[in-house]
Amino acid sequence: MTDRIRLHYLMHIELADAEALAEKILIEQSVETPLDVLSDDIKEKILGRIELLEELSDRAGYCRVVFSFSAANVGESFNQLLNLCFGNVSMYPGVRLLDIELPESVLSHFQGPRFGIQGVRQALGVYQRPLLATALKPKGESDAYFADLAYAFASGGGDIIKDDQNLIANFSAFQSRTTACQQALQRAADDSASRCLYFPYIASKYEELERHFAWLKELGLKGVLLSPLIMGLDHARGLAQQYDLIYMAHPAFSGSFSIQASHGMSAELLYGYLYRLAGVDISVFPNAGGRFSFSQLETAAISQRLRAPLTGIAAALPCPAGGMTYADLPDMGLTYGADSVFLLGGSLLQHNADSKKSTADFKAKILEQFDEELVAQEKSVKAVSSCEIGDSAAQAFLEYLPAVDFDWQDRPAILYKKDQTLPFTGVKRIELIGKQDEACCFDLRYFEIEAGGYSSLERHQHSHVIIGARGRGKVLVAEKNYYLSAHDVIYIKPNTAHQIHNHEDKPLGFYCIVDRNRDQAESI
Amino acid sequence: MTDRIRLHYLMHIELADAEALAEKILIEQSVETPLDVLSDDIKEKILGRIELLEELSDRAGYCRVVFSFSAANVGESFNQLLNLCFGNVSMYPGVRLLDIELPESVLSHFQGPRFGIQGVRQALGVYQRPLLATALKPKGESDAYFADLAYAFASGGGDIIKDDQNLIANFSAFQSRTTACQQALQRAADDSASRCLYFPYIASKYEELERHFAWLKELGLKGVLLSPLIMGLDHARGLAQQYDLIYMAHPAFSGSFSIQASHGMSAELLYGYLYRLAGVDISVFPNAGGRFSFSQLETAAISQRLRAPLTGIAAALPCPAGGMTYADLPDMGLTYGADSVFLLGGSLLQHNADSKKSTADFKAKILEQFDEELVAQEKSVKAVSSCEIGDSAAQAFLEYLPAVDFDWQDRPAILYKKDQTLPFTGVKRIELIGKQDEACCFDLRYFEIEAGGYSSLERHQHSHVIIGARGRGKVLVAEKNYYLSAHDVIYIKPNTAHQIHNHEDKPLGFYCIVDRNRDQAESI
Repeated sequence: MTDRIRLHYLMHIELADAEALAEKILIEQSVETPLDVLSDDIKEKILGRIELLEELSDRAGYCRVVFSFSAANVGESFNQLLNLCFGNVSMYPGVRLLDIELPESVLSHFQGPRFGIQGVRQALGVYQRPLLATALKPKGESDAYFADLAYAFASGGGDIIKDDQNLIANFSAFQSRTTACQQALQRAADDSASRCLYFPYIASKYEELERHFAWLKELGLKGVLLSPLIMGLDHARGLAQQYDLIYMAHPAFSGSFSIQASHGMSAELLYGYLYRLAGVDISVFPNAGGRFSFSQLETAAISQRLRAPLTGIAAALPCPAGGMTYADLPDMGLTYGADSVFLLGGSLLQHNADSKKSTADFKAKILEQFDEELVAQEKSVKAVSSCEIGDSAAQAFLEYLPAVDFDWQDRPAILYKKDQTLPFTGVKRIELIGKQDEACCFDLRYFEIEAGGYSSLERHQHSHVIIGARGRGKVLVAEKNYYLSAHDVIYIKPNTAHQIHNHEDKPLGFYCIVDRNRDQAESI
Repeated sequence: MTDRIRLHYLMHIELADAEALAEKILIEQSVETPLDVLSDDIKEKILGRIELLEELSDRAGYCRVVFSFSAANVGESFNQLLNLCFGNVSMYPGVRLLDIELPESVLSHFQGPRFGIQGVRQALGVYQRPLLATALKPKGESDAYFADLAYAFASGGGDIIKDDQNLIANFSAFQSRTTACQQALQRAADDSASRCLYFPYIASKYEELERHFAWLKELGLKGVLLSPLIMGLDHARGLAQQYDLIYMAHPAFSGSFSIQASHGMSAELLYGYLYRLAGVDISVFPNAGGRFSFSQLETAAISQRLRAPLTGIAAALPCPAGGMTYADLPDMGLTYGADSVFLLGGSLLQHNADSKKSTADFKAKILEQFDEELVAQEKSVKAVSSCEIGDSAAQAFLEYLPAVDFDWQDRPAILYKKDQTLPFTGVKRIELIGKQDEACCFDLRYFEIEAGGYSSLERHQHSHVIIGARGRGKVLVAEKNYYLSAHDVIYIKPNTAHQIHNHEDKPLGFYCIVDRNRDQAESI
């Protein structure tokens, strides 16, 4: 890829008018000047290009446009990047920023999370399972009340306490409350060898930030809670880099960007990618099904973006929150996996009058799904990749899977798709790599379609890479049909309808490689 | 009024359901805790109250609610105020913040504009008429080009030059451009007694803000352009207070708040009231009828809020902009009056090849409506008031890669490893998927090792997944040796030494899948 930034937008407009709007955006986001006064040189070097413009096949009246801009439009600054992506165009109705792709020349200016998943785990000495968090509530209670709550949560086995965003921003109140809570955690550590971290929220005015941060260091705290959209993304990034604290981000003030169907920016981009560029180690966002209205697809995508490989940038922890209850934990475990932080706030208080007991129940619920390994592991903080993988080094993988006539020992064939409502026939699937949390960001599966069988006609956001293994079949990709024989490779790009037929009289076998974190297929 | 903050929201909801939503908001914005665990004391002191709830008579399906909250919810901090007004509730669909009323106990923590309307007029020595502004465009032109433009604008009678928000954020480029422009204005002042102010945009990263601001002071500049929504409102406020510069605010990144009909916050509140609390002296916002879609009612209201009486807070100048032309000036004069800044950017460049002439015409047009009075007026600066996944679809991918005897068209075999210092022999590599930026997070390669050949013994952080394709070989993984034949799958976990030998007399072919983002191999 050349040294260009690619920006993806959704435009709520008919295709006939889409090109004119796309050109307006191009100008707005780069030269901001009528084209007729531009030199050819500026047009060539600064003005962006339209790389793709297409109607959405599944959503009438919407188009998707991809621009590329020279990296010179951004320089070294996050603020300039935000301006390029969503500066003036933020004032265009019906335009939503979906994604940003940065070349390494730009990405290299970002340090990303200081701690990342591994760093946070090292600080806690907890591996293999999601981390338990709570928030100190309600506002207005006494220091002693919060200290008791912190003590109970730590004694019950909790990992992280965020002192919520309604902590009063007055320095002496801040000192007294944080001291009380931290001393309570110290007592809990002495009494029960707990190792719970306390992250107070800093919301003081600009002039007092320094002494608030300095106070956290003086108190020996390991982390802080900030609201990047209130403080400014780059401001919060800079402070987090400066003070060597685990940085938990709160989504306050961000909803106008993320919850509009055809404006703002995608939730995964904001809470997953931009927060990670802003150095966030733990990104708190509203889980689907809670007090807020994010969809499961959105929250899964946020989590994927926090943990997906990104050159030189550590993976961060998703923290789905916002009215979660004990009953939600099993689903959250399935959706988010081990490398997550689960936060119970109000429901922890409601669960049992004894918060230590509430926390112990919280932890027991987590341990029903996950094994805990408490031995500290020496790993680089800047892991190359995590995706949705757990901590793979610890697990007993099958390293060798010898094939006997397209059969792999310890890898049983299973029915194609759990969802039996999809139309298909005569397809079996073998999960070769992925289900044991191998340390890669893709899954390798082998499929076999019996004579006359076919897979479902489907479409999804993730791509497929297919390698023919045995037999011969036909692969429908959008409007085209391809033959698939052994060692033929087919790449099916995102959002492209496809179906595989075995029209011959022998089994059709093929490998299919997909991203580990992917969306659900949608049947057509 | 008692010591309470009053917040007005529009809710897109039927009256029958409005009270339940209002109660949810009350809790969300203050205690964030289920009511049943609250003490009476907290309910009394911290939880807000619904002061008014009514259906809009002129807009079906909408209600207006007014809450009051104790000022204790905010303390001394702007960030806390933003959190109280639009923190978590920003994630509620159909809720728009219309207005904020602050008691004096809260308002007294804000200094407001340092200069205000009178301070800016004093700095320029211009009274009675709107101020003339332009923006230096387009991005990418040379320092000399911008210096000429600045000279021409000043000589033609212009007042304020904003060096637009696409100024490149690199310190030495910033120094050289600002020096060139400021020197040009100095020359213009010497040649024609002009008194034009130059406001460069600061968008540098957090770590470099101080030297950028210090540089402006060193250069003797009087003002700066900032984007408060990108930087964070309180951050921008604090910097402007710190550096004694006229503070012009750009609306970049703000549109998601202001342009939604039933979400975000009203334009007057954002660009008029909150920007003014943030210390803005000149608020740039999109004028009705320009490139953006604000209504005349909205832009008039913004202007009203910037200039309305507010205890202890100076009035600020509205600067309607965004594609304004010469033809718009008479209407703007009527709408905004004398205490305004009118900005022509692109149209100034289009008007006449000689920008001095363009500026003189701009000024003549203003003077058709307003008398200029050049006698300095002694007024307090703090006047109470003046009046009012990668998108791959764009690329030409090869979707279909038919294999002919382990050869794929358009996929040439290349030498194994660029680094020829690694010990290996007789290995060729074919990049099947990945090098064309296909939308997946892995790469698929085919390797072939000739009879007697072997790959290098290496180790890396990323894992390998290997599928046998032809021939038979041996794979050393840590201490173990495995045979590799067609369709055998081998998973090599991170940081594990491995090497592949073809000890037989036919080619050994295999696929190898790796994460797209991966570390370099380390030879052993």
